[in-house]
Amino acid sequence: MLIFNDVRERGPISRSQLAKELGLSPTTVTVIVDYFMEHGFLMETGKGDSSGGRKPILVKLAPDAGHVIAVDLNQSRAAILNLEAEILRVRHLPDAGKEGWVRSLIQVINSLILESGADFRLLGIGIAVPGIVSLDKGEVITATNFNINHLSLKEELQKHFHVPILLENDANAAAYGEYLYGYGKQVANFVYLHVGKAVGAGLFLAGNLFTGGAGGAGELGHITVVEDGPKCRCGNQGCLELMINESALADKWQEWVTDGAIYPGLSGLVQLSNSGHGGAQRVMNYVGSLLGRGLVTLIHLINPSFILLGGELALSNPYLLQRIKKYVSEQSIPIFSRHVEIKEGMTRSNAGIIGAGSLALHYFFEHLHLEKYIRA
Amino acid sequence: MLIFNDVRERGPISRSQLAKELGLSPTTVTVIVDYFMEHGFLMETGKGDSSGGRKPILVKLAPDAGHVIAVDLNQSRAAILNLEAEILRVRHLPDAGKEGWVRSLIQVINSLILESGADFRLLGIGIAVPGIVSLDKGEVITATNFNINHLSLKEELQKHFHVPILLENDANAAAYGEYLYGYGKQVANFVYLHVGKAVGAGLFLAGNLFTGGAGGAGELGHITVVEDGPKCRCGNQGCLELMINESALADKWQEWVTDGAIYPGLSGLVQLSNSGHGGAQRVMNYVGSLLGRGLVTLIHLINPSFILLGGELALSNPYLLQRIKKYVSEQSIPIFSRHVEIKEGMTRSNAGIIGAGSLALHYFFEHLHLEKYIRA
Repeated sequence: MLIFNDVRERGPISRSQLAKELGLSPTTVTVIVDYFMEHGFLMETGKGDSSGGRKPILVKLAPDAGHVIAVDLNQSRAAILNLEAEILRVRHLPDAGKEGWVRSLIQVINSLILESGADFRLLGIGIAVPGIVSLDKGEVITATNFNINHLSLKEELQKHFHVPILLENDANAAAYGEYLYGYGKQVANFVYLHVGKAVGAGLFLAGNLFTGGAGGAGELGHITVVEDGPKCRCGNQGCLELMINESALADKWQEWVTDGAIYPGLSGLVQLSNSGHGGAQRVMNYVGSLLGRGLVTLIHLINPSFILLGGELALSNPYLLQRIKKYVSEQSIPIFSRHVEIKEGMTRSNAGIIGAGSLALHYFFEHLHLEKYIRA
Repeated sequence: MLIFNDVRERGPISRSQLAKELGLSPTTVTVIVDYFMEHGFLMETGKGDSSGGRKPILVKLAPDAGHVIAVDLNQSRAAILNLEAEILRVRHLPDAGKEGWVRSLIQVINSLILESGADFRLLGIGIAVPGIVSLDKGEVITATNFNINHLSLKEELQKHFHVPILLENDANAAAYGEYLYGYGKQVANFVYLHVGKAVGAGLFLAGNLFTGGAGGAGELGHITVVEDGPKCRCGNQGCLELMINESALADKWQEWVTDGAIYPGLSGLVQLSNSGHGGAQRVMNYVGSLLGRGLVTLIHLINPSFILLGGELALSNPYLLQRIKKYVSEQSIPIFSRHVEIKEGMTRSNAGIIGAGSLALHYFFEHLHLEKYIRA
């Protein structure tokens, strides 16, 4: 197990190098590496540099030895990922009423499995949920936009799929994806911020995903940015998400763009403001100030090293990024703002899928009971 | 070391019980316990229940075998604490100009040592600083109320005192004190909130003090609670600390209490509002709304299990506590507000001293090089 994860993280690497670094005998390493190779999880790959004698054969993770299914409920997508979190196949989840929703999810997962070839080996399912979840119980506690409350999603799926099933809030999952396959290797403290139809943050603190006492940490979308602002369904007032959600932005467009042009949607807004459209920029300035206000609060409370942006409104949006950076540098305590780097996340529009997949992959790597997954 | 901390945390305990719980031989335990007893750090104390045979002798920490000096710069106090964080002796730090400040601190520490008896054994010095510090470098990065910037305080003190010297932000130190000697044993996620002349929070997350990327996490005093409010010296606007600091409250008193009564100071305000004085209650309602707003933000971002209150404005203030609780229960996401308990910290007005002492005690217990501290 130790050796497997060592090869996975640092391969390609030679058996003798492994033995040296782990302080194990070459025989032990060879026996274990051979075991994993026999079952397809490690593979040989070319030769390394010689330190005298013949060149050593290198081993590395066999990326297609196993697969996970990743579901991003926010984007209504399910995908198959290999052991390196590469997306192999994607399907969209159909619109389904509240009742039919879980059933249609099960159907999509089933078709993904059926479509896959004979070498498909399902190791786990990860699900990114736009709401508050309990990872322990596998329960969606609340997902307001989906009208879900206290749904035992893991239990429902477990009836059909006999692999580990991991649920997490979507911004938390995306933070996890950045941790494993994005910027996580560079810093111990970062925040992943999703800015799209919803606004939420995943907190990676001191090297771990931080989910709080009730599993809900990171609700940046529900902090007040407009004092005495309109009441939000969360209970609070003038919440960031409420002030910059799609309907609020359409209203601002209506108010500020008087040439009769119709509201172009989130991605249209992003494109227009970046190409210099005055009205779109005015809307984006509004978004930038409120987001900036939320970020200064976040920075003063959490003092992260990176803030990684994702979501339809923040991706490929240099205009907004520049506004936010300016706001943060002007309004926050200098030692905090000097220290924080604000940029796009590495997983970009696949943040939810890679995040959900990361949950399942990480679980598999941590609890490697290979016997269960080795085909007869 | 393992055995010492085991006895410290779970004593009084018998040698045989220790051996059983740690899976060590009774002889090993006896040799090590005797070593610590010989040097005064453990002591025998009565007899436990017998499980047949004669009653076992119990051992426990000898609380006065060693001492730390704790400095709370916010309250201008220095104290000697024993190994159980009991305060044995306190001295006030004299007012001193910016230049004389460090010298007068050294003098006070020196007199505390000189006044102590022959059995005084200094193990470390902990200092709670109202500002942002670097624990690693032992540097005060910035303490605005003290006009300090980039002061190598540890280095200065280390010239005079050859024991470990630990610096920490005062709210962080207080959180540490609650962790070790207050409510910390009950929860993994809590926030210590100091509300006095300054406002700041210490974050204890997932069982560890969280200080952020640049050592500054928890600046709840510098989040915006009044949109477009006055500019704060931190760079931000309408900051919580700025809106409810002493001069802001004196202004509110002036405005709202028109019977000519002069502003009674923070503790006067607390007393008056609790005894039903209308004007004082109006000021306290104002404090409660702004604090409540800050706390809802904190709760939505961090989702703590406890919020522990301290500081002149929050201690012994049931009136304010009730206002805050009401605000939080009305304005936050139900699963968050149901989950969080808001109450006074256990270390009360000694939070800074016990916090600073905790830093030094914890360091000693973790790095127990007893040889250095054993007297000839």
